[in-house]
Amino acid sequence: SLIPFGIACAAVGFGVKTVVDKQIGGPCNPKIRKGESKVVDTVDIEELGNKAVFCRCWRSSKFPYCDGTHNQHNVACGDNVGPLIVKKKD
Amino acid sequence: SLIPFGIACAAVGFGVKTVVDKQIGGPCNPKIRKGESKVVDTVDIEELGNKAVFCRCWRSSKFPYCDGTHNQHNVACGDNVGPLIVKKKD
Ligand code: FES
Ligand code: FES
Repeated sequence: SLIPFGIACAAVGFGVKTVVDKQIGGPCNPKIRKGESKVVDTVDIEELGNKAVFCRCWRSSKFPYCDGTHNQHNVACGDNVGPLIVKKKD
Repeated sequence: SLIPFGIACAAVGFGVKTVVDKQIGGPCNPKIRKGESKVVDTVDIEELGNKAVFCRCWRSSKFPYCDGTHNQHNVACGDNVGPLIVKKKD
């Protein structure tokens, strides 16, 4: 039957795109503010306090702040992303 | 012949993964510091000057700073990401 052959070929296509995503890259942001053409956030230095942690994985429920979800994202997607920390000198 | 059928099925598999990447998401970072298990950057508030622009698309050649490459990335991948701007109050 053609069905197993078709499924195998589809799996190859899916796998090729998975490799392409890792090597060349795909979209970063599946969910956050998709109605905006470009998600830019501006924060005032004076409002940061002693330390602020900003999300760069696009999965945080507190975006633009990091909530730790980058750890699950890294496991799920084989990625290695983490936040930007802006802090006052010790 | 089986070849066109196989190619069509591979294309479907590739397309399914493309949709999954947009909806559920894939890896954010194809290239930057892949030897590190988690790329975290820490900057001192005192070093920022009046304004600093930080990359969240993982394509900047000046990472962790933004060099504008998010615009090409957004076109190429159908994404909508942009930088974090940290600035002194006007
Ligand atoms: S939750 Fe996105 S970098 Fe931490
Ligand atoms: S170059 Fe990455 S956000 Fe601008």
